[in-house]
Amino acid sequence: MGERLGPPLSDPVFEDLTIIGIGLIGSSLARAIRKQNVARRIVIADSAPEALARAEALGLGDAYAADLPAAVVDADCVILCAPVGANAAIGRAIAPALKRGAIVSDVGSVKSAVIAELAPILPAHAHLVPAHPVAGTEQSGPDAGFATLFVNRWSILTPPDGADAGAVAKVRALWEAIGANVEVMGAAHHDLVLAITSHVPHLIAYNIVGTAADLEDVTQSEVMKFSAGGFRDFTRIAASDPTMWRDVFLHNKEAVLEMLGRFSEDLTALQRMIRRGDGDGLFELFARTRAIRLGIVAQGQETAAPDFGRRGPDSGSPAG
Amino acid sequence: MGERLGPPLSDPVFEDLTIIGIGLIGSSLARAIRKQNVARRIVIADSAPEALARAEALGLGDAYAADLPAAVVDADCVILCAPVGANAAIGRAIAPALKRGAIVSDVGSVKSAVIAELAPILPAHAHLVPAHPVAGTEQSGPDAGFATLFVNRWSILTPPDGADAGAVAKVRALWEAIGANVEVMGAAHHDLVLAITSHVPHLIAYNIVGTAADLEDVTQSEVMKFSAGGFRDFTRIAASDPTMWRDVFLHNKEAVLEMLGRFSEDLTALQRMIRRGDGDGLFELFARTRAIRLGIVAQGQETAAPDFGRRGPDSGSPAG
Repeated sequence: MGERLGPPLSDPVFEDLTIIGIGLIGSSLARAIRKQNVARRIVIADSAPEALARAEALGLGDAYAADLPAAVVDADCVILCAPVGANAAIGRAIAPALKRGAIVSDVGSVKSAVIAELAPILPAHAHLVPAHPVAGTEQSGPDAGFATLFVNRWSILTPPDGADAGAVAKVRALWEAIGANVEVMGAAHHDLVLAITSHVPHLIAYNIVGTAADLEDVTQSEVMKFSAGGFRDFTRIAASDPTMWRDVFLHNKEAVLEMLGRFSEDLTALQRMIRRGDGDGLFELFARTRAIRLGIVAQGQETAAPDFGRRGPDSGSPAG
Repeated sequence: MGERLGPPLSDPVFEDLTIIGIGLIGSSLARAIRKQNVARRIVIADSAPEALARAEALGLGDAYAADLPAAVVDADCVILCAPVGANAAIGRAIAPALKRGAIVSDVGSVKSAVIAELAPILPAHAHLVPAHPVAGTEQSGPDAGFATLFVNRWSILTPPDGADAGAVAKVRALWEAIGANVEVMGAAHHDLVLAITSHVPHLIAYNIVGTAADLEDVTQSEVMKFSAGGFRDFTRIAASDPTMWRDVFLHNKEAVLEMLGRFSEDLTALQRMIRRGDGDGLFELFARTRAIRLGIVAQGQETAAPDFGRRGPDSGSPAG
């Protein structure tokens, strides 16, 4: 897919920017912001000393702080990159220390709960502009990040009603400078869309890997050996960070249960087709799902290479 | 994953080999057999004239036949590479024309049904040695194949009770010559193992793509745009050949329904955890599923690169 960053900004969007939580997303953001000159100074905070030390060893920021109020005191923009379950505690810790007019944003995969938790905690002079970059890999931690993670991916902003237009514009400018496409929508709609495009897919991937691991008539060794038949694809997202995903499901309960209900209903219908030997019904579904992938490839959100290009550029060509 | 073929055989395993059905698997087999000198002469048959013409244009065989009896009359080995639903008709067509002692094999994803259908049809002098290479991509047709498709993948042989040991050894030699690992097991166990490692994964992938396509409160355009959150992974196997997969579900009904039942049970338990806010239960599952992927990578059945290596070698490294 060849994602490349454009030229860096000549003038930074922010003087002082603080990233709280230096995992895959936080560290990718730090790298991209530095590379694209989005902020003059980057401060990094993390509650885990080893992550903070690693961020410093990697040179991801200009300053490193274990103390949250100290980390945000000069910030024009603070971006929360911790699992969403930690946001309320972080919000309470930084609220008294925030500069007048500071922007507070985040990268969480759920948005209604984040607004419900943070809005009452933050001071009235601060601007809450939640964001969700729809990007990632199955890896975690400061070493897993890379500057091009957000290139050609979508970042969804869900500013609450009455949000400051200037603050929203700055957060948009940040994401666009690091290569993302920006979409603005309501938090409730975001949570519904992501329930089907991200949360339920993760849930069923975790679930089938768990089912396979627990079988008594098929060994784990057999599951691994013969996983190239399709199963291995699911293990990638089922290797994602457990804390992050626990928090997603606890904070987007309603939309996930709604979408999961539809998935299960459809699966029951498929099950009945198999039991009854309804080949035409199966064929009809299997034939129309192809179009969705073609659309995703056409929109630049997926590689056109067979098998995700897993085997490198030589495979899948007739000459191979 | 860097799959490479070893040196070609100095002496071919078969003089005359016929491939019936020149799709992804058949055409990969033809290419690999040619490259590795597994047969002196390759005859290709297909009921679709355009596929046969394409195979000839690609130079995949030494001879091309639309007529099945004519295609197999000189064959020491015939490999059925059509969707499994076509096997009975193909078997009936070739049975009277088979040479004495000819080996008949296949590449189907189900094995009990294939044996049940073919064994009574084939002449007593022929040797039925069913095989299933656990390999593939989401693409179809003679152009989609490539010679290294089977390298480091498993090919499972399910010879019926009393199968000729010499015939089994020759089929094993064929697969090993084109880079596959060979495992021998009973057809019923094969069908159970593949139900969980391949058939149910395909079913739930087709299902979630169908669910997403049918939503009224989330548009198809939104599903595509925000698919990088996990959904797009599922669209790959949901883009697989509809005829092939219809036939798999119709011919492995019992094992698929059994494994699907377990999947649904586990999913209901997960749903209850979300409804009740059982964060510990969710975390416990999400943490233990990682180990399965590490095992698959360690066994050489999956790339260790983040995101399947989708973005090329530069991504996912700290320097990115």
